[in-house]
Amino acid sequence: MSNKKTAVVLLSGGMDSSLCIAEAIEAGFTPATMHLNYGQKTETRELKSFHDISDYYGIEKRLVSDVSYLTQIGGSSLTDDAVDIEKADLDSKEIPSSYVPFRNGNILAIAAAWAEIIGAEALYIGAVEADSSGYPDCRRSFFDAFEEAVNLGTKPETNLKIITPIINLSKAEIVKRGTGLKLPFELTWSCYSDSEKACGVCDSCALRLRGFSEAGVVDPLEYKVRPKYD
Amino acid sequence: MSNKKTAVVLLSGGMDSSLCIAEAIEAGFTPATMHLNYGQKTETRELKSFHDISDYYGIEKRLVSDVSYLTQIGGSSLTDDAVDIEKADLDSKEIPSSYVPFRNGNILAIAAAWAEIIGAEALYIGAVEADSSGYPDCRRSFFDAFEEAVNLGTKPETNLKIITPIINLSKAEIVKRGTGLKLPFELTWSCYSDSEKACGVCDSCALRLRGFSEAGVVDPLEYKVRPKYD
Repeated sequence: MSNKKTAVVLLSGGMDSSLCIAEAIEAGFTPATMHLNYGQKTETRELKSFHDISDYYGIEKRLVSDVSYLTQIGGSSLTDDAVDIEKADLDSKEIPSSYVPFRNGNILAIAAAWAEIIGAEALYIGAVEADSSGYPDCRRSFFDAFEEAVNLGTKPETNLKIITPIINLSKAEIVKRGTGLKLPFELTWSCYSDSEKACGVCDSCALRLRGFSEAGVVDPLEYKVRPKYD
Repeated sequence: MSNKKTAVVLLSGGMDSSLCIAEAIEAGFTPATMHLNYGQKTETRELKSFHDISDYYGIEKRLVSDVSYLTQIGGSSLTDDAVDIEKADLDSKEIPSSYVPFRNGNILAIAAAWAEIIGAEALYIGAVEADSSGYPDCRRSFFDAFEEAVNLGTKPETNLKIITPIINLSKAEIVKRGTGLKLPFELTWSCYSDSEKACGVCDSCALRLRGFSEAGVVDPLEYKVRPKYD
């Protein structure tokens, strides 16, 4: 293990970021996992998934950071109790209210700092451009620009690649790829709204369930409501 | 005031960032000031300067954010109690131990999120490339790359200019410009080490005192030790 290069993997606990660990291992890296608490409603549940999945993959280096300044800045249903979680409208082209301004920019900035400290050479983030909710900071053009900014703004010996292995995958393709790599879907958590059983109706649950349905795979998680997607 | 465009000004409480408020006003913006606590040794003293200076300029919108995850990531004498503050060596070409990995990247990411929420069109940061301590994230090439990343990673209607009005100034030129704009130097704080009287010997004090000396202006702050720079 010690000769392998290190990759920081951003791990929310959802299935997209979990697949990134498997992809980093496939690519020959030793993953170091990083999780961010930012006052999201399901913070504790996501943290449990972070550790369950990190344990499953035998990850030694882990960092959990509190970035609750995002709550303070507000303006989003993910972090502001005054804004209700919207029910999913998967056909909408508008930026959803679960948008946190420049969230991936903030996440990547922290991850880049940690990557420099531990000497990592790659940074995996499970952003999905094609089948996501339209966040502007999920596009590869954004990651390319950010990668350049990171390499200009860190020490000369720091050279980080920002790797987005699933950016062009649909949720169904993520399910299929994860199934092939024996991803422990039962340990992951995607719901934005609930922490005991997944709600089944928030954007994130809806995208997940539709992806499983399209892949012809049964999601092993329990749901309060399990809408049908055909 | 209400027809003016808003500029987020990052205000540590030091004289460089304070000069940025004056420059933003000169350029026709209404400043909104943002301060970050990140577990630095002089956090309370810097926060006092932030409010004193914001009061002086009549700033209505202010945001103080805790970003102490930077302490947790560590690796720097500014945020890690285990690392002693180095005495200044102004001729050294090495990156000093007060380096916080990708600090400006992290700071700008937060500021960009707030700027989007309040509809600001500019973001002022008092980085100094020529006469600073050699931080890689103080170069204009970094800010250009980051500006592009911000505009790619935020909503289409967000269009932020990152303005670095003092990036090519020496500390002496900052003192002269600040004197011309009636900057309240007595309200600012630069020392990394002490909070009652400025120590006079840390990197930041040394750069400040040398700048005043070269400008032929007397620094109104009290110092424990006031080395001579000729």
